[in-house]
Amino acid sequence: MSSQKGFAAIAARLEGQAIELPSWAFGNSGTRFKVFATAGTPRSVEEKIADAATVHRFTGLAPTVALHIPWDKVDDYAALSAYAQDHGVRLGTINSNTFQDDDYKFGALTHVDAKVRQKAIDHHFECIDVMGATGSRDLKIWLAEGSNYPGQADLRGRQDRLGESLSTIYDRLGDDQRLVLEYKFFEPAFYHTDVPDWGTAYAQVAALGDRAVVCLDTGHHAPGTNIEFIVMQLLRLGKLGSFDFNSRFYADDDLIVGAADPFQLFRILFEVMRGGGYGPESDVAFMLDQCHNVEEKIPGQIRSVLNVQEMTARALLVDTDALHAAQDAGDVLGAHQVFMDAFYTDVRADLAGWREEHGLPADPMRAYAESGYQAEIEASRVGGTQLSWN
Amino acid sequence: MSSQKGFAAIAARLEGQAIELPSWAFGNSGTRFKVFATAGTPRSVEEKIADAATVHRFTGLAPTVALHIPWDKVDDYAALSAYAQDHGVRLGTINSNTFQDDDYKFGALTHVDAKVRQKAIDHHFECIDVMGATGSRDLKIWLAEGSNYPGQADLRGRQDRLGESLSTIYDRLGDDQRLVLEYKFFEPAFYHTDVPDWGTAYAQVAALGDRAVVCLDTGHHAPGTNIEFIVMQLLRLGKLGSFDFNSRFYADDDLIVGAADPFQLFRILFEVMRGGGYGPESDVAFMLDQCHNVEEKIPGQIRSVLNVQEMTARALLVDTDALHAAQDAGDVLGAHQVFMDAFYTDVRADLAGWREEHGLPADPMRAYAESGYQAEIEASRVGGTQLSWN
Amino acid sequence: MSSQKGFAAIAARLEGQAIELPSWAFGNSGTRFKVFATAGTPRSVEEKIADAATVHRFTGLAPTVALHIPWDKVDDYAALSAYAQDHGVRLGTINSNTFQDDDYKFGALTHVDAKVRQKAIDHHFECIDVMGATGSRDLKIWLAEGSNYPGQADLRGRQDRLGESLSTIYDRLGDDQRLVLEYKFFEPAFYHTDVPDWGTAYAQVAALGDRAVVCLDTGHHAPGTNIEFIVMQLLRLGKLGSFDFNSRFYADDDLIVGAADPFQLFRILFEVMRGGGYGPESDVAFMLDQCHNVEEKIPGQIRSVLNVQEMTARALLVDTDALHAAQDAGDVLGAHQVFMDAFYTDVRADLAGWREEHGLPADPMRAYAESGYQAEIEASRVGGTQLSWN
Amino acid sequence: MSSQKGFAAIAARLEGQAIELPSWAFGNSGTRFKVFATAGTPRSVEEKIADAATVHRFTGLAPTVALHIPWDKVDDYAALSAYAQDHGVRLGTINSNTFQDDDYKFGALTHVDAKVRQKAIDHHFECIDVMGATGSRDLKIWLAEGSNYPGQADLRGRQDRLGESLSTIYDRLGDDQRLVLEYKFFEPAFYHTDVPDWGTAYAQVAALGDRAVVCLDTGHHAPGTNIEFIVMQLLRLGKLGSFDFNSRFYADDDLIVGAADPFQLFRILFEVMRGGGYGPESDVAFMLDQCHNVEEKIPGQIRSVLNVQEMTARALLVDTDALHAAQDAGDVLGAHQVFMDAFYTDVRADLAGWREEHGLPADPMRAYAESGYQAEIEASRVGGTQLSWN
Repeated sequence: MSSQKGFAAIAARLEGQAIELPSWAFGNSGTRFKVFATAGTPRSVEEKIADAATVHRFTGLAPTVALHIPWDKVDDYAALSAYAQDHGVRLGTINSNTFQDDDYKFGALTHVDAKVRQKAIDHHFECIDVMGATGSRDLKIWLAEGSNYPGQADLRGRQDRLGESLSTIYDRLGDDQRLVLEYKFFEPAFYHTDVPDWGTAYAQVAALGDRAVVCLDTGHHAPGTNIEFIVMQLLRLGKLGSFDFNSRFYADDDLIVGAADPFQLFRILFEVMRGGGYGPESDVAFMLDQCHNVEEKIPGQIRSVLNVQEMTARALLVDTDALHAAQDAGDVLGAHQVFMDAFYTDVRADLAGWREEHGLPADPMRAYAESGYQAEIEASRVGGTQLSWN
Repeated sequence: MSSQKGFAAIAARLEGQAIELPSWAFGNSGTRFKVFATAGTPRSVEEKIADAATVHRFTGLAPTVALHIPWDKVDDYAALSAYAQDHGVRLGTINSNTFQDDDYKFGALTHVDAKVRQKAIDHHFECIDVMGATGSRDLKIWLAEGSNYPGQADLRGRQDRLGESLSTIYDRLGDDQRLVLEYKFFEPAFYHTDVPDWGTAYAQVAALGDRAVVCLDTGHHAPGTNIEFIVMQLLRLGKLGSFDFNSRFYADDDLIVGAADPFQLFRILFEVMRGGGYGPESDVAFMLDQCHNVEEKIPGQIRSVLNVQEMTARALLVDTDALHAAQDAGDVLGAHQVFMDAFYTDVRADLAGWREEHGLPADPMRAYAESGYQAEIEASRVGGTQLSWN
Repeated sequence: MSSQKGFAAIAARLEGQAIELPSWAFGNSGTRFKVFATAGTPRSVEEKIADAATVHRFTGLAPTVALHIPWDKVDDYAALSAYAQDHGVRLGTINSNTFQDDDYKFGALTHVDAKVRQKAIDHHFECIDVMGATGSRDLKIWLAEGSNYPGQADLRGRQDRLGESLSTIYDRLGDDQRLVLEYKFFEPAFYHTDVPDWGTAYAQVAALGDRAVVCLDTGHHAPGTNIEFIVMQLLRLGKLGSFDFNSRFYADDDLIVGAADPFQLFRILFEVMRGGGYGPESDVAFMLDQCHNVEEKIPGQIRSVLNVQEMTARALLVDTDALHAAQDAGDVLGAHQVFMDAFYTDVRADLAGWREEHGLPADPMRAYAESGYQAEIEASRVGGTQLSWN
Repeated sequence: MSSQKGFAAIAARLEGQAIELPSWAFGNSGTRFKVFATAGTPRSVEEKIADAATVHRFTGLAPTVALHIPWDKVDDYAALSAYAQDHGVRLGTINSNTFQDDDYKFGALTHVDAKVRQKAIDHHFECIDVMGATGSRDLKIWLAEGSNYPGQADLRGRQDRLGESLSTIYDRLGDDQRLVLEYKFFEPAFYHTDVPDWGTAYAQVAALGDRAVVCLDTGHHAPGTNIEFIVMQLLRLGKLGSFDFNSRFYADDDLIVGAADPFQLFRILFEVMRGGGYGPESDVAFMLDQCHNVEEKIPGQIRSVLNVQEMTARALLVDTDALHAAQDAGDVLGAHQVFMDAFYTDVRADLAGWREEHGLPADPMRAYAESGYQAEIEASRVGGTQLSWN
């Protein structure tokens, strides 16, 4: 315990931490069995942005909002940008969607039919146009493509076509824009997925060029996968573009980050720092991608960014000199203890003080609950259609 | 190979095999991301029954249809029964539904609020009334109940309340009726599920009485679980009530039975026979519970019942005398080979002949494709609302 | 955070906590690929007991030592008991071993050959004799029995024979003795295991009688299994006999308890308390079952019992009134936060103080390192054969 | 079924199929709990080669034997080569071993200490010398390196050192020699493994050069992993060097290939052909890597190569024209059926005929059992020390 750094030594490194919020987290979500609605859920993109801005106002941690096209499609992105800025946030990553159109039943960028592939490519061109209008850096592509039955699809042909489609999209990007490819173990396809693992995502983006990188969603791995190892490897290879944070017990559960396995989050963040993926000089983007199926959405997002901040502080507290000394000496228990000492350090009071110093509420969860915002949106957002994944 | 029985020796045991079809398999289904619609999908319970009857007409394997309340709620169950019989099938198991009402967000039979529990109990009373009207034997209860976050719920209190609720429902059953409790590893809850494993289902039904049994859904287990062992154990304990057949590569994928791991289906069916769960003297019900997300529904169901029949034939072919001799002798490779010889025997031509002897098409998949039924329903079922899980 | 109890409120409940140490943890262990030896490893049962007593002397948490027969077989158990008491500890659970004799290649209590079964039963009778001599309460049975290939064994016949064998052993127990049956998902058998899950262990011990209970080894489950749920269920059914604590990332890794997923250990201990499995009035035994393949053994055991104590303190800190209020109100995030607040509370300084009040070193890891014990045994234990699993 | 090719159409493609046998499969093996010995087990490298040659004599499928250094270290490799050729087989892949020396407790090629790394590199130089003497093409490296506890090791530093060590070894290879890097999910390390997945193996060998490729062991993946997808991807990237075939239900069970999931083996072999990894023009090596813990070793290996051959024949039977037509038409069930039709075709009688045409016994299992070889080695191999992993 004596090896522990104090909070003061790491406070400065918390400055400027930013976690991007997904606009869709403020809409309703659920399972294939049921989507439970909640009062106050946004009916428009603007209401989603207002909610996201609220999370930022109470935490200081969430200055940008990711959009999903076409869910967040508007006529005037400049106006939407201005709306966001008026609320204290900016528009961030643009997420494409090739999984909700009937034409994409058997694939989009991988489809056997060149016309369907072109339609999906054109959709990404449209997303790039939106990026131009919003000033977004990242085009994030999650491919919900695959097959359900052995024999249904030609795995190799699809992979080759994927490479061609991505190349066409990549070529359209501006010099300051990135293509971020997300992998996922399974779902919605149940036999094969076209980008199922980090290795495939890496091989695909490596073939594209420097501005193509990988998105690591923490819920998108096979059971037992050592995720911090992948973080290390992608950073080492220069290809870690961004995180989609969430947590899970089983599959892609999309629970609040840090809720299922806090220690895993600690290990991931430690490896991010080890590999240079944290701080102002890093291009690695932190984002949330979660579903608040049964809990309230805005406090759910507040809780999430606080969890990331809290675990970041703990990871910063690791006495790396003592750690490396123990590692080099083959002192298994000593090294493990240095590591655990940081994890077990209670940083909550220090962070409350840090927030007050920064003009933020010491306890954002409580401050939000007492703010009246929730009651206000429940009262005012009456009529219209609540948004979910649409 | 010489140890193999011939098909003639087992053909008689295929007589009377029956696999119940779920009405909902004929409606649209999908993932939380997208439900793809298909032309010809039923708009009414009657159309679902007509499709199920079609599967039976082409295969002779599916004489009954399971209903789901309220999805299949009608005013006049006697009329529905008559409709089914006119089409050559009967109504079977009644499935309750306590996962789509807003009141059930935090539980139904396990809810902390006695009023919600009573509502869920009353729903099961209604299902029992339907059973009376349809002549159904089995009330199948799948509890989509649980919690998403550690601390959210009192696991023990919920388990106790579950016992009380089930007891109340059980007491309402007639002497010839059964309560069939289904377990599931996870989904839609992502931290804890109230009946997550066969052990819990067994403990709950053992506390109720002789007419309470367990439903084993082949897709509802943790990765790597030896399912045929559970089949053995539940039969040994006298508590295997029924199967929900499907297959999976990852989670509860609900793919066509036998499509993901044919050898697993073989092992399961072998253990069913070993434990006396097959044949006219057994009460074990065979049912399908699948989702045809990307494939055609009626041929998907035809393929499924054929897979069960085909694998049943292979399992019947095991030379059990030779098997037991090798097992008793500690001849690992010998016993394994006797087992595999049956699995690898191609029974398809023999089954085609068997079908023709029974006045059925030799190749039901082709016969259906050539029958014009699909074109007919696609042409006639225009307008109205296609059914999915509603 | 304000909802948190203080340490003072729970300190009294830490009195008397006892975690039994396995004698074999002090011998060498490893994988099928290599067992690394370490200097100072015991060459006799007495040296193992001396090491276990050392763990207790530095922590006050480990007053008993479990024996494994035949690994710890001696001529005079009364003398061994006296030896232990001279060193400040007592002999505890007796573990049988039916997995290292050539006769048991295809089973022991489940074997097809009655002579082999009788040999295995006789071994358990011998263990019961040892229990009489040592005053042990518990006979713990882990069945390393199963098969590697489908068809190799008759699952049902083995299960029936297992029931008979256990019944014969159970009948031999004294009125104050218990049979504790341990389940395990897989290994050393790779197709089927005869007691693979808690449901099987429960069904078997329920058939025996009140003094037959289940041992839950935290590393013996399928990936993703909610272990605290099983804790709850076994306590509810009155059949949780004991814990074998360890931790794992993959399979039965046998790592230090709390090292892989500290939050899981917290949840397990919380559920133990919820169900009445903790404290002087409970019969649930806490034991370690670990392998220190690469780390030092004595500090490995010290670290382990400290982890259990530390997490016990955190679990005791849960404000159960606030928790239940939030649970009953359907306040998902509120209930989760009450739960997490306890987990995140740093109890290490309070526990150091508590230890000093009890005449123990504030930092047992450091105190052991500075004690010279390790250097002493490394110097003195020269020659002879280091013990491993023999 | 009518779409099926006949056996005659594919028989020619079975010519020359070769599956390399591992010398160590003929020694005793087991789990960390027990290694069961069997009568007739080899006491020398020569006896292992004689057994391997016996497998080839009965099957015509196993013309080469892989060696493991130092297990198979001899003074005169030319003499060993001649011995093998006298018995009708050749020496094949050389496997290095950096997991059984005490110096390698915390790593070998990744160790923090340059001296230990150099020792491990020198061992590989020695292996390359052996390759020169035996005429072997492939140096196979399985790294049993990793750590057991979070914090124990610096993941990134180890990965960088691994790259350097491999580069040094690679530079020593001759122009016709290959470095084949094997990945493994876990074991013997239980927290992190330095080459845990195909992505890491790929990134490492891609950095080395054209003659560095990946070995895919079919038992070395996370639960649920789609292995045939990885086969497709590595072939597409030009980096699939070889297979270690075996099968598993749980972890790295090392069971007989095809025994646990025959359909998976079929899918893998189909994808091998799809990607050009089968036949005389391909450099992909087929090898076994299995443990016969409870079954007889020589018939275990015979069974294994027959399983590979049998499933190869089935995979060749796929009507690829019909398959691609159905795939392109989006005919899910049709494509799946074409695929399954080949899998379900019973090729055993045809293969028996094919063997007789090639001067081989129709039923190699029976022929071996009747040959007297087993009785002969059991009688003659008396005294000496049976080999296991030493």
